[in-house]
Amino acid sequence: MRAALYVSAGNVVVGEVPDASISAPTDAVVRVLRSCICGSDLWSYRGIVERAAGSRLGHEFIGVVEAIGAEVTTLRPGDLVVAPFQWSDNTCPACLDGIQTSCQNGGTFGAPGTDGGQGEAVRVPRADGTLVAVAEGTSGVQPSLYPALLATSDVMATGLHGAVLAGVSEGSTVAVIGDGAVGLCAVLGAVSVLGAERVILLSRHADRSAIGRSFGASEVIAERGEAGIAAVRELTGGLGVRHVVEAVGTKQSWEMAVGMARDGGSIGAVGVPHTAPELPLFQPFIHHLSINLGIAPVRRYLPDLMTRIMGGTLNPGPVFDASMGLEEVARGYAAMDSRTAIKVMLS
Amino acid sequence: MRAALYVSAGNVVVGEVPDASISAPTDAVVRVLRSCICGSDLWSYRGIVERAAGSRLGHEFIGVVEAIGAEVTTLRPGDLVVAPFQWSDNTCPACLDGIQTSCQNGGTFGAPGTDGGQGEAVRVPRADGTLVAVAEGTSGVQPSLYPALLATSDVMATGLHGAVLAGVSEGSTVAVIGDGAVGLCAVLGAVSVLGAERVILLSRHADRSAIGRSFGASEVIAERGEAGIAAVRELTGGLGVRHVVEAVGTKQSWEMAVGMARDGGSIGAVGVPHTAPELPLFQPFIHHLSINLGIAPVRRYLPDLMTRIMGGTLNPGPVFDASMGLEEVARGYAAMDSRTAIKVMLS
Repeated sequence: MRAALYVSAGNVVVGEVPDASISAPTDAVVRVLRSCICGSDLWSYRGIVERAAGSRLGHEFIGVVEAIGAEVTTLRPGDLVVAPFQWSDNTCPACLDGIQTSCQNGGTFGAPGTDGGQGEAVRVPRADGTLVAVAEGTSGVQPSLYPALLATSDVMATGLHGAVLAGVSEGSTVAVIGDGAVGLCAVLGAVSVLGAERVILLSRHADRSAIGRSFGASEVIAERGEAGIAAVRELTGGLGVRHVVEAVGTKQSWEMAVGMARDGGSIGAVGVPHTAPELPLFQPFIHHLSINLGIAPVRRYLPDLMTRIMGGTLNPGPVFDASMGLEEVARGYAAMDSRTAIKVMLS
Repeated sequence: MRAALYVSAGNVVVGEVPDASISAPTDAVVRVLRSCICGSDLWSYRGIVERAAGSRLGHEFIGVVEAIGAEVTTLRPGDLVVAPFQWSDNTCPACLDGIQTSCQNGGTFGAPGTDGGQGEAVRVPRADGTLVAVAEGTSGVQPSLYPALLATSDVMATGLHGAVLAGVSEGSTVAVIGDGAVGLCAVLGAVSVLGAERVILLSRHADRSAIGRSFGASEVIAERGEAGIAAVRELTGGLGVRHVVEAVGTKQSWEMAVGMARDGGSIGAVGVPHTAPELPLFQPFIHHLSINLGIAPVRRYLPDLMTRIMGGTLNPGPVFDASMGLEEVARGYAAMDSRTAIKVMLS
């Protein structure tokens, strides 16, 4: 089958790989309908994070169950499913805590020895604990909903998780740092799922802030650093915001998050700290901050998000502003790397 | 009047200072019954934190109201009161959030231009918002309760706050890093106030761990660093603990806190990060930790803690293992510096 392969920084190709197949009785094989490129895929593409030459790419996909192992009980061939970007058994202590990303039998699609989402099919370990069926079979699911459903496999759930970690609830005022797909989905999750009243989006790109506004952002701040902090403080009576979503993961974004949080406030951090920033603790201590970090346990949120999408009350689909075939994946990476696309869908 | 004065690192004296007096209509003057030396006072005593020569010392005291300003309405001369280590108006946005340590009109006793607790009397700004009366007059309060009441002015409330920040509730398992007075009070607060079921105290001093056990610690771990982490993990089925109180504030104690926390767990940090440790964010991110820091808003906890003490259900008094007169304050600092005393009460 065909799948995207990492060659080296800046060089991604599509090549022939062994067909996805059942190798454990708890596996399923999913024929990919749509996959996409993640902001986190860019870390290796940009040479910031090492990745083995020839390794598979992609961890977000929706598709149709093609085969199931002997022990899989909740899925049937033909089911339309969404996969979280990590698989999990959904029964271990961490999963029962709702932290499926810490599953003792879990793993990430695209890691060495596994299939990536950017390919024609994927072997899904722990299928019962991982995949969530949108519908028995594919009937009744309009392809127009595929982008929204695909977004739940990572960015929609991750953005929402950031808002949850930041303690957002009905009526909250929240600032979102980062206007990538995760930041934009944090806006949508804060407003549509959690009932935030006011969302301040930090964004300096017109296309992204437009989506942010359509997702419910009430204000957009283009300034960064100290100026961005000052602007947010001015909008909040000098006090700062109670809830900050950090959806970037760099030293600068952390400084902004700490600087704009109200005393006693909460930061929800879902930006992967790839550059290993270190957080000076004195300011958070003095200002009595709650700092909540974590890889989003997408599996926890999937059923609810899928219900909202199928019910027509949630549509994160607009985060995909470019769409192309799998064979054009190199162009997709280049578009995201150059920020000419927010997020690229592959089909 | 007489008061303790900082001369230089390792050198503390008692000298003559101007009498405490009302200077604003919201002030009260409190005649000190008992005060004490804080672990945080040792930072300047040890030369780690700068302090102006001649500055006043101490921020914990109980006493009797001697005079009140024209606008003070909740207190009367003769009332026995407890002072939190910071004053606050208890009406500003931060105070209404229960973060009185961020009060816009607040300050710390012993800061430049203010009276310290280690003296014969103290001018208390914002007296209505700061002081809590144990009783009208001093009658009905046995001097045997003074140590317990004095402990609420900082360490008891701070220890409890650490457990609150760590999310401790009925039935919790919690690890407490630090066997100073704050750590010991975290044990007591977790067990007696919040209903924790199991408290693992990290302590290598026999006298301190004995108090910890009497306060409710179920296990004591003497190991530090990686060995301490391994010991706590072994006691918790390899998973780590859901709740960690960090009551030291050093790089090593933070490494231990992160290392022993269960995935999805919470760290409550009340150890003042004087040495400005920086927290590497990758591990807390991967392990999905909630990190909650803050100077304890003692004022929030005072009424409840005082009720428990007067009702005989809470007694943090044993954290004071040495008692001496104000004139002997230099000996008190030396005793705490050399760890021959946990906490010194002055009268």
